[in-house]
Amino acid sequence: MSDTNFSLRMSRLALGMQTSGLHALALNPGQSLTYLTGLQFHLSERPVLALFVPHMPPVLVVPELEAAKARHLPFAAQVFTYGEDPATWQAVFQQACLAADLHSGRRVGYEPRAMRMLEYELLVAAAPGCTFQAAASVVADLRVRKDASEIEYMRKAVQIAQEALEATLPAIKIGASEREIASELTLQVLRRGSDPTLPFAPIVAAGPNSANPHATPTERRLQEGDLLVIDWGAAYNGYFSDLTRTFAVGKVDPEMERIAAIVLEANAAGRRAAGPAVLASSIDHAARQVIEHSGYGKYFTHRTGHGLGMESHEEPYIRADNQLPLAPGMTFTVEPGIYLPDRNGVRIEDNVLITDSGAESLSDLPRQLRVVG
Amino acid sequence: MSDTNFSLRMSRLALGMQTSGLHALALNPGQSLTYLTGLQFHLSERPVLALFVPHMPPVLVVPELEAAKARHLPFAAQVFTYGEDPATWQAVFQQACLAADLHSGRRVGYEPRAMRMLEYELLVAAAPGCTFQAAASVVADLRVRKDASEIEYMRKAVQIAQEALEATLPAIKIGASEREIASELTLQVLRRGSDPTLPFAPIVAAGPNSANPHATPTERRLQEGDLLVIDWGAAYNGYFSDLTRTFAVGKVDPEMERIAAIVLEANAAGRRAAGPAVLASSIDHAARQVIEHSGYGKYFTHRTGHGLGMESHEEPYIRADNQLPLAPGMTFTVEPGIYLPDRNGVRIEDNVLITDSGAESLSDLPRQLRVVG
Repeated sequence: MSDTNFSLRMSRLALGMQTSGLHALALNPGQSLTYLTGLQFHLSERPVLALFVPHMPPVLVVPELEAAKARHLPFAAQVFTYGEDPATWQAVFQQACLAADLHSGRRVGYEPRAMRMLEYELLVAAAPGCTFQAAASVVADLRVRKDASEIEYMRKAVQIAQEALEATLPAIKIGASEREIASELTLQVLRRGSDPTLPFAPIVAAGPNSANPHATPTERRLQEGDLLVIDWGAAYNGYFSDLTRTFAVGKVDPEMERIAAIVLEANAAGRRAAGPAVLASSIDHAARQVIEHSGYGKYFTHRTGHGLGMESHEEPYIRADNQLPLAPGMTFTVEPGIYLPDRNGVRIEDNVLITDSGAESLSDLPRQLRVVG
Repeated sequence: MSDTNFSLRMSRLALGMQTSGLHALALNPGQSLTYLTGLQFHLSERPVLALFVPHMPPVLVVPELEAAKARHLPFAAQVFTYGEDPATWQAVFQQACLAADLHSGRRVGYEPRAMRMLEYELLVAAAPGCTFQAAASVVADLRVRKDASEIEYMRKAVQIAQEALEATLPAIKIGASEREIASELTLQVLRRGSDPTLPFAPIVAAGPNSANPHATPTERRLQEGDLLVIDWGAAYNGYFSDLTRTFAVGKVDPEMERIAAIVLEANAAGRRAAGPAVLASSIDHAARQVIEHSGYGKYFTHRTGHGLGMESHEEPYIRADNQLPLAPGMTFTVEPGIYLPDRNGVRIEDNVLITDSGAESLSDLPRQLRVVG
């Protein structure tokens, strides 16, 4: 991401913080920190904290052995490091809070989804008199609209995922286990150039397992009559794809063909509804209505989609209660499904980009129920 | 892990909680939850919480679309589910806290390293009058001593990693980039039967990059004279290996050969020092002393090792300040290193098991500086 202008992103953050009345934003390792600084750390037993304060270089607290990362940044930063003895950490957090001018009365935001108690407790103890408050949207509002390079990375992640699935098709046959298919698909995704860290391990779920939207691959082997749901993705320069296709293993029950056709129509309706200024809820409504009118409404047990980018789930959530107007540069999934407990499930998922004039599906693999076996 | 006795683990947890004066332990998704229940969830925008209370089935709060996982457990559980609208979540957390009898005055523990503000704030609001306290050791104390099946899984994870490195050797040559080598190694690890979720993405770092212990693979290509550090692992049934070997690319500076020989000796000294009742600090001391006596002490910038199991870093930490006596079943890394900034680095890492009579290295790949290129 050498072409990324981190200083610009931090300036935009400062504006958002001022609107929210925040004096500082505290981030621990995660995609928001990477988005703003390029820095990547594992979530480990060693705390890492970044403090963003408008008109001040960011303040970083990192373990000594990660200091090299923080010392080669394309912008100014105040870096505080600590050694291996946890008894010394609190004092270093205090120095950092002093440098960030976190005196009594300051309002400090954090991201509830990312912030751990490990970092939070060191921070709170190091900044007495400050007020701490959830501030999930301040970076999310920036990340939700992708720029041209982010969109290119996502296109590439979709392309890698699609090519990998096509290359896996020969391994998808009666007698193959869900785990075997998942392994082969993972290999193919990596071979085609995905980042080594995939957005998630592929879901390969057949027969009754396909009725569980978040199944984990098992040793169960494909049988004639199964529906097979494959939900997989790839990563490119830290940006994700997230696709689902459903297959028929040999000859399936006519009801299974019917629910597949209904979900196909719901997926198309959701994609058709997308465009700038459309509410996120309208896309959910468009897809859900198709399934409800068919009589299977109670078997569509989840929202229609979620934002996609550096995280496999992020804003904008495509949900009945989300009145967010979509805008150019937003990227999200459209993934309606029908799940008949103990029988079979169907899901068809595409990755959609809002454009100036409408919406574009980044993914274009055939969506019809393909027969394998 | 069908042979795992989760009820036994939960009984042991109850004993530990009573010793610590805890009425309840609150866990969000992570390895401790998996260890106790077998349950695996992604850390997502949807909160997941488990409440463990002695003499009571665990209380689980999960999203509706994950409910199937919680309803097919090999033990009794009280499961509370919620739908897609976040406005409804708090009430469900309240029902769960009522079921767990979290009335005023109860002491509730959490793991600071795993617990997020997302789950923590819902919990705190749902259990008014309770006291919340960090309780990192209550599950860690159980997890730190591996049983026979856990050790078998780790042996298998080591074997997969070792075979994968040998299979990658032909791709390690002058002109190959760090990223290319890392991709090939990842492919080989998966092909040899690793779980799809690796413990971490391989570190492949050559020349100056090898002087950064936590480097990320770059497009830099191997050059004659580089040292090359490869730090990689595999996963089997959720248990990890974590190995490092250092290579010489063609002919290297004699000082580089010398630091490699010193680290080799430090690694052997650390492994030799290990055994039951030995303090964790003694292993650090044994390895560190070799490097300090050689005059490179200030270039060994990290602890000698860390525990290994379901996490790539866990108890016991092999650190100068850790007075923990080692015990049979404990597993950890011994990984001394020397890092000469802007020049080269060396690290040699093995995975060690404490036995009744001494210690065993689970890993046995050649440790000498192998010449590649």
